[in-house]
Amino acid sequence: MRPFDDTPLSRDGKSLILAYDHGLEHGPVDFEPVPETRDPEVVWDIATHDAVTSLAVQKGVAEAYAPSYEDVPLLLKLNGTSNLWMGEPDSAVNCTVDYAAELGADAVGFTLYGGSNNEIEMAEEFRDAQEAARHYDLPMVMWSYPRGQGLKNDTAPDTIAYAARQALELGADVAKVKYPGSREAMEQAVAMAGPTKVVMSGGSKTSDRDFLSTVKGAIDAGATGLAVGRNVWQRENPHQFLDALEAVIYEEAPVDDALELL
Amino acid sequence: MRPFDDTPLSRDGKSLILAYDHGLEHGPVDFEPVPETRDPEVVWDIATHDAVTSLAVQKGVAEAYAPSYEDVPLLLKLNGTSNLWMGEPDSAVNCTVDYAAELGADAVGFTLYGGSNNEIEMAEEFRDAQEAARHYDLPMVMWSYPRGQGLKNDTAPDTIAYAARQALELGADVAKVKYPGSREAMEQAVAMAGPTKVVMSGGSKTSDRDFLSTVKGAIDAGATGLAVGRNVWQRENPHQFLDALEAVIYEEAPVDDALELL
Amino acid sequence: MRPFDDTPLSRDGKSLILAYDHGLEHGPVDFEPVPETRDPEVVWDIATHDAVTSLAVQKGVAEAYAPSYEDVPLLLKLNGTSNLWMGEPDSAVNCTVDYAAELGADAVGFTLYGGSNNEIEMAEEFRDAQEAARHYDLPMVMWSYPRGQGLKNDTAPDTIAYAARQALELGADVAKVKYPGSREAMEQAVAMAGPTKVVMSGGSKTSDRDFLSTVKGAIDAGATGLAVGRNVWQRENPHQFLDALEAVIYEEAPVDDALELL
Amino acid sequence: MRPFDDTPLSRDGKSLILAYDHGLEHGPVDFEPVPETRDPEVVWDIATHDAVTSLAVQKGVAEAYAPSYEDVPLLLKLNGTSNLWMGEPDSAVNCTVDYAAELGADAVGFTLYGGSNNEIEMAEEFRDAQEAARHYDLPMVMWSYPRGQGLKNDTAPDTIAYAARQALELGADVAKVKYPGSREAMEQAVAMAGPTKVVMSGGSKTSDRDFLSTVKGAIDAGATGLAVGRNVWQRENPHQFLDALEAVIYEEAPVDDALELL
Amino acid sequence: MRPFDDTPLSRDGKSLILAYDHGLEHGPVDFEPVPETRDPEVVWDIATHDAVTSLAVQKGVAEAYAPSYEDVPLLLKLNGTSNLWMGEPDSAVNCTVDYAAELGADAVGFTLYGGSNNEIEMAEEFRDAQEAARHYDLPMVMWSYPRGQGLKNDTAPDTIAYAARQALELGADVAKVKYPGSREAMEQAVAMAGPTKVVMSGGSKTSDRDFLSTVKGAIDAGATGLAVGRNVWQRENPHQFLDALEAVIYEEAPVDDALELL
Repeated sequence: MRPFDDTPLSRDGKSLILAYDHGLEHGPVDFEPVPETRDPEVVWDIATHDAVTSLAVQKGVAEAYAPSYEDVPLLLKLNGTSNLWMGEPDSAVNCTVDYAAELGADAVGFTLYGGSNNEIEMAEEFRDAQEAARHYDLPMVMWSYPRGQGLKNDTAPDTIAYAARQALELGADVAKVKYPGSREAMEQAVAMAGPTKVVMSGGSKTSDRDFLSTVKGAIDAGATGLAVGRNVWQRENPHQFLDALEAVIYEEAPVDDALELL
Repeated sequence: MRPFDDTPLSRDGKSLILAYDHGLEHGPVDFEPVPETRDPEVVWDIATHDAVTSLAVQKGVAEAYAPSYEDVPLLLKLNGTSNLWMGEPDSAVNCTVDYAAELGADAVGFTLYGGSNNEIEMAEEFRDAQEAARHYDLPMVMWSYPRGQGLKNDTAPDTIAYAARQALELGADVAKVKYPGSREAMEQAVAMAGPTKVVMSGGSKTSDRDFLSTVKGAIDAGATGLAVGRNVWQRENPHQFLDALEAVIYEEAPVDDALELL
Repeated sequence: MRPFDDTPLSRDGKSLILAYDHGLEHGPVDFEPVPETRDPEVVWDIATHDAVTSLAVQKGVAEAYAPSYEDVPLLLKLNGTSNLWMGEPDSAVNCTVDYAAELGADAVGFTLYGGSNNEIEMAEEFRDAQEAARHYDLPMVMWSYPRGQGLKNDTAPDTIAYAARQALELGADVAKVKYPGSREAMEQAVAMAGPTKVVMSGGSKTSDRDFLSTVKGAIDAGATGLAVGRNVWQRENPHQFLDALEAVIYEEAPVDDALELL
Repeated sequence: MRPFDDTPLSRDGKSLILAYDHGLEHGPVDFEPVPETRDPEVVWDIATHDAVTSLAVQKGVAEAYAPSYEDVPLLLKLNGTSNLWMGEPDSAVNCTVDYAAELGADAVGFTLYGGSNNEIEMAEEFRDAQEAARHYDLPMVMWSYPRGQGLKNDTAPDTIAYAARQALELGADVAKVKYPGSREAMEQAVAMAGPTKVVMSGGSKTSDRDFLSTVKGAIDAGATGLAVGRNVWQRENPHQFLDALEAVIYEEAPVDDALELL
Repeated sequence: MRPFDDTPLSRDGKSLILAYDHGLEHGPVDFEPVPETRDPEVVWDIATHDAVTSLAVQKGVAEAYAPSYEDVPLLLKLNGTSNLWMGEPDSAVNCTVDYAAELGADAVGFTLYGGSNNEIEMAEEFRDAQEAARHYDLPMVMWSYPRGQGLKNDTAPDTIAYAARQALELGADVAKVKYPGSREAMEQAVAMAGPTKVVMSGGSKTSDRDFLSTVKGAIDAGATGLAVGRNVWQRENPHQFLDALEAVIYEEAPVDDALELL
């Protein structure tokens, strides 16, 4: 396991990953609130904010824009899929680690749907990606999202704690997990992950105060940071909102102080 | 991503792909309107028209005729299948990129049936082809055709916009999509594709005016061009019709002016 | 595509493939009419007839007898299976092209069951075999036999024409297809195959006149020749019958003249 | 195909394979009649008898004992499985040919369940093993056992004849088949196998006279020998019984003479 | 097969494997009795006890802690999965042997669910791991756990004996099996395993006396030792309990004497 603080994902031991793979995972509907966000350039510009320690995108978006944004650390998301098909959760490996390295990725990401009837296959694909990432000394971020026939509640505290543990056991450097509903539950997930860093997944857009409060709670619970997409670029003032997140994540500011930055 | 204008697929930044893989995909029935078109030589001759920036064929047809038509840029379609079997949409990878390069291909093509229960497998086959194409510096054209159990309408505006976005996210240089029914919908698809070029798929034969009007609308909506088969070689006057398409695509001519060329 | 006339399969541009893989495909029952034909040596002796431009066998039979029959061009059938199991048509790849080349094969053969729900997998296995065959400069003969859940009539003219076209599109040098019932239908299949040569599949044993007439019709329709097993070695006079076939195929003799040779 | 007489499996052109993979295929129950046979050493000692031309075992047993029994020719059985699971017959490939060669195997063995819905996959695994065995010049013995959903009687004469033929067609040097019930049926199987040698599978334990008579019948029918496990090591006098088998197989002794050795 | 006494797993021919992969296999629930055990460091510290001849963990835990605990022999568990999904037993291969060797593993472990409808696939994955382990001279421990649709009782004496035998036949150096309920049954399992060493699996936590008595019985039955997790680290006094196990396993102490150490 690579010391997190040495990686490009870290700023003073904390992290804010800006995620922008929604065009593949959810489709055009996620760009409707702020139509110009369908243009990747708009989001790469947002990612130049100092609070952002990496931008997570799929291969095609990386190919087209990474050369023009060398200052934005690139987190290449290796797998992903559309929501058009039916069946147990699964994800296609769209990019090899070899090619990610060739594209200049600073880190790689991989979704595991623990609990899916495809978990075995996904874990084995993760193995190949993880060992290749070690070869290139690229940090590995696991989107650890239990989901499938056997799971009734994918944000239950026990489920999120298990998800965080899977990331540790399988060799991820960072676990991206959903918010389990309370600070105590987040502490449990962070404890289960041990040396693997935990970042909270942003999810669908909520109010400024609610979102910043949740992030604050996660940080106070020991989370290393945040992986956020819609809650930044579906806002009209993404740069200002990143100022607020910066205050909460890196400066331990109270939510009220952070809200004043908006 | 390779700059499109530098590729053999581009003529002044626009493109007209002549498609001729119907013998595999649809069978002999597509040659009935103009029986001599079952002879590949007839279509390769059509492809010598200046308007055509590449001819898309399967491996066997390329092997047999490409050596005699060195001036026709070759777009080797890597996958494809017959319509004889039953089940969720899928396509066989009939040619490796290594062999396509050996055959002198100028570009490669690949169908993705987003929404098929086989999407995951097809996306992973696409990954291998795309990364190999990068190795040979061959532009990759994705036939991005959502289709399958989960899709009710495969030309709905949202579906086509999603299809265009999949092409970008997965790393295609060009997205071949069906016409989504209106100029506004085509603009949305073009916007979703970002730097990936969009070409409209010709589909089954329609009247001269209808087809040219649709192409004109697509171009005006920002499409880079057209991928057309039956609407050219199922006509009695394919060369003249290519004159008309040339006017619409490359010279921004009004449809009425183009119709006069027929 | 390799010029057919330069291959060992050609005699003056025509071809007669003697097939002897029935022990695997059908089992011992095919040897009952002439029990000594269960001994491969008997059929290899028949294959020394000048009319035969190659003998098609599975790997094991090739290993055992090819070294003793260097004058018989060897068409190694790469896939095949028993008729003991149940399910959608499929065929096992029993021999690699590398090993076929090592055994001294002069050509290779491959069955594609177009229309089977296993068509995708078979086509991809064919791809590997075809590209390897190109590497060794070995002609590829496709047993193009539509068959499966989606097909009601596997000798309908449209089906056979589609089968012949699949052979061309996928890169076979020779298409072995069933007789589609009429000279017109055979002409259509030959036309669909374009530069791919078409040989008629012999099928189960019929009368001397009927069989020779069918062959004559196929040749007149443009077929390059015949692939025949039972209709030769299930007869008491296989050598004489090959004389008759030689007359029909290579010498354009009328059926009545050929019958006099028996 | 390798001349059988040159292989370690042959003694004067005949063969007696002692099989001891029952611990995997059937489990501890097969050792109950003579409990000390659960100790592999006991059976390796039996295998030192001059009548035995090879001992067939799985990888683990070979690893542990072969170094101590260099005089016992080792037939490494490459696939095999337990009888604990449910479903169409199949077998796991437990040992690569590369590793078998490294262990000093003198020959390799492979089960094919012709007629199983897994026949295609098993045949392709056999292909890889067979071609690798050729590389190392190791004789290949096929346990050719039709079995599965489509088969009602797995010892019917036609079935055994087909099984023997599959071994020839697919490239086995030796076919191990069940006794088809009569000398005539065995002759048919031997004839179908052509140059592939046929050994009779011993099966479950029967009386001394019955077993020796069956073996005698098989030899008289042209079989090359016997592959036997339980009918040797489930007896109290395995060495004496091997004396009797030696007489029947190698010395063409009448059954009554052989019985006197017990 | 590698002489067990030469391996790091052996102390005077006996063995005590401390297992700590429960975070993956069972999830956070196993850490509830002693919450600090969710911290891997706590268990690595326990593993420094002289009684422990190796610590069995998954890749991620090994990556993070093995460099700090060079004196604890590392048994890298190659496969494993969560209990979140549904279906026939299976396990993901989470670590290659190459990478285990790179991490400095002293031995490797692999679960086989004999009797699962996935047994064939798991056995073939085991083959690859076992042969790679031989290459690196790493001892292979099989978690031999019959389980699945076809099994009613996974600790029946016959089942455990079969499990032990599978480990031998497939080439494991050590078989980890469940306690089959009696000393006689354990003797049978040990006998079936032959030269493969048998260690008893600890299972869920029981009373001090019950557990030590069972371990004593297993050792007396010929078992080489114990693989234990919860019965050590779910106790408040794991170091003292290891003292007791040390007495029973290595010093042949009576249970009463061992209990006095607590």
